[in-house]
Amino acid sequence: MGATVERVFVLGIDPGLSRCGYGLVGRDSGAGNRMRAWAAGVIETDHRTPLPQRLWTVNQELRTLMAEHRPQAVAVERVFFQVNARTAMSVGQASGLALCAAAELGCEVAQYTSNEVKQALVGYGGATKEQMQQMVARVLGLAEVPRPADVADALALAVCHLTTLPLRRAVAVASDGDGDPGVPGAALAAAIGRATGAGAGR
Amino acid sequence: MGATVERVFVLGIDPGLSRCGYGLVGRDSGAGNRMRAWAAGVIETDHRTPLPQRLWTVNQELRTLMAEHRPQAVAVERVFFQVNARTAMSVGQASGLALCAAAELGCEVAQYTSNEVKQALVGYGGATKEQMQQMVARVLGLAEVPRPADVADALALAVCHLTTLPLRRAVAVASDGDGDPGVPGAALAAAIGRATGAGAGR
Repeated sequence: MGATVERVFVLGIDPGLSRCGYGLVGRDSGAGNRMRAWAAGVIETDHRTPLPQRLWTVNQELRTLMAEHRPQAVAVERVFFQVNARTAMSVGQASGLALCAAAELGCEVAQYTSNEVKQALVGYGGATKEQMQQMVARVLGLAEVPRPADVADALALAVCHLTTLPLRRAVAVASDGDGDPGVPGAALAAAIGRATGAGAGR
Repeated sequence: MGATVERVFVLGIDPGLSRCGYGLVGRDSGAGNRMRAWAAGVIETDHRTPLPQRLWTVNQELRTLMAEHRPQAVAVERVFFQVNARTAMSVGQASGLALCAAAELGCEVAQYTSNEVKQALVGYGGATKEQMQQMVARVLGLAEVPRPADVADALALAVCHLTTLPLRRAVAVASDGDGDPGVPGAALAAAIGRATGAGAGR
């Protein structure tokens, strides 16, 4: 029949300064919307290196990845302040670089909280990290759970973006167009909750 | 006599997403080390613009400033988690961009906490913001306190860097060389405390 196969690439980024995970997931419209991991890895920087140089390294690596793979969308984990304020600040700095690099590329940019990713993949936000990682392996047809965890998290972000895309578009159409469709908030969380019949866990 | 006059430029940056202050301070070795403000302003972004685009705008403006003025050093306010977690995250993201842009320029990069700046300018870390801003105006020979506050803060960071440079170098020589001389920590705070005879307020 020769139907046109559309391939969509999404780059997931689990921001961090010591370890920044990334995972590129592609989905072919012609293969039952099957998703596949095309690239994945971790950008690492040494804590003995001065902070500005570490940030520069992360920035360069992310920009190189984006220029090389030209994803249609970039999904970055949305970070909040955690117990360890020192780590949270460097995670915030790395996420700023990732979001800025994606904006420079001109592609769609989305942010998801860890709970939103779990919700999208496992069905409820209170799922364990292990449950989520196993689901990542299953969805992407991997024999094993991706290691290290930063890679699994980055792939999960990309899968989350691809699987919630139809929902997100529906929400954007249903709403009055306020807010950024690439940055889902309470509306999307509610929509996912409705779709899966699960409450939004914490 | 024709002694060589050395002019040092330092760009101070008060990172922020809605308002990012900057101030370029130059010091001539030949004019009694007199400091002068050469440029100052605020980069503003609209909260209705998507976050990645806002970060991109701040990044572009900072890189343009650095390329234009080629400062020998960049001094960025070191931020901690504050009461408003949402603001702190965007401040962290903006600071990451500033530090990364400075690293790309290849110049010296320093971070100072608000207390370290007050300590350096007023003599004690517990000084009020107003006291610090008045000191900025006095040191730079300005008829008025720079407005808005983001500009005064950015100029204060540059002045802080220039005035603590001799102390910082002395600390670097005295220490075993561990740590980054461009990022002063407890050693510098203690040295400033000793030099001014004031305790480190909070």
